[in-house]
Amino acid sequence: MGERVVLLDLYASMFGMRARVALAEKGVEYEYREEDLPNKSQLLLEMNPVHKKIPVLIHNGKPVCESLIIVEYIDEVWKEKSPLLPSDPYERAQARFWADYIDKKVPDAGRRIWYTKGEEREAGKELIEILKQLESQLGDNPFFGGERFGFVDVALIPFSCWFHTYETCGDFSIEEQCPKLISWVKRCMERESVSKSLADPNKVYDYVLALKKRLGVD
Amino acid sequence: MGERVVLLDLYASMFGMRARVALAEKGVEYEYREEDLPNKSQLLLEMNPVHKKIPVLIHNGKPVCESLIIVEYIDEVWKEKSPLLPSDPYERAQARFWADYIDKKVPDAGRRIWYTKGEEREAGKELIEILKQLESQLGDNPFFGGERFGFVDVALIPFSCWFHTYETCGDFSIEEQCPKLISWVKRCMERESVSKSLADPNKVYDYVLALKKRLGVD
Repeated sequence: MGERVVLLDLYASMFGMRARVALAEKGVEYEYREEDLPNKSQLLLEMNPVHKKIPVLIHNGKPVCESLIIVEYIDEVWKEKSPLLPSDPYERAQARFWADYIDKKVPDAGRRIWYTKGEEREAGKELIEILKQLESQLGDNPFFGGERFGFVDVALIPFSCWFHTYETCGDFSIEEQCPKLISWVKRCMERESVSKSLADPNKVYDYVLALKKRLGVD
Repeated sequence: MGERVVLLDLYASMFGMRARVALAEKGVEYEYREEDLPNKSQLLLEMNPVHKKIPVLIHNGKPVCESLIIVEYIDEVWKEKSPLLPSDPYERAQARFWADYIDKKVPDAGRRIWYTKGEEREAGKELIEILKQLESQLGDNPFFGGERFGFVDVALIPFSCWFHTYETCGDFSIEEQCPKLISWVKRCMERESVSKSLADPNKVYDYVLALKKRLGVD
């Protein structure tokens, strides 16, 4: 088809990882371009003039921004392989609801753990409450998509490589409090689409330490 | 089909109005139930246990929450009449991007105009910048959906009945600074689906005055 797919991304970004996992699930080849956020590329500024944020998926020269919108776009364009959203409208709405819940809750609670001084424990407790809510939604299913790895799995799994950072900065154990969720993480990591797309948790932690220093919160 | 559709809503809610406009576009009959937010109904708490917020669309007993997800659900279920999202994946992604932009920017800037003391003018300027960005996206098209009233139109038009409140509290004129956007509002108001679904701007203002009193910010 002569497709040209470029992903403007940042190694440690959970939002970028969503796009990487979705592209890997679909078997789409693409060019990965690492951005340096303090020195954003001209291409990034041109392709996402509104938010100026990664990730941006550039498909045949045209940009798609915002990670969940990118994942849904990927699912619609390469629809034959590994459908991510269910076909039933009600199930689709439910999947979108939980992906939206993740977006509204997890990044903010996560950031408050490493970005603040003195608020780490409070933010850690909040994150655990959010993860418990998600764990209860998972129930006894292997994936949020039921028997199949799906949209909500793509939305949440990238945060798992930040768990080590959250736990270290907030001094708590996610596995102790959400054992089923950690089993789900391990199950997802058995997929090459996930294990090859996610950042190394130790590198995420190093990235956060460097970021704290840059932002003056260490 | 023996459909049973119930909308848990609040008269002045721009989020609720999105669902009302979408249902009206599709010609879906439904039962409207006004919620009293300080005394939420048992049904609301049961149907949206996670966020406990309106609007909730209950379709044959099953709840759908979060306004844009509701609009997309309505578009997928009643797909024959007045399609709201385009069929092309790239155009769909663009429509989702702008609806998401509205969600991320407009309610917050709007609330800061009436909810704060001393910050009204600053928030007003910010809202104007956001509306100008949207106006430039509209360009010379009659609707955000191009020739057709679509998803982004549904997402944004409910805020227009709050413009009077924003202008009065923030002491500025949207029409002066965004004349094309106001022409778009008038064009949308020619549709019965919009004019019958939107709240009366004076009633919105009265609602906000009462809310300010209740919240102790008057």
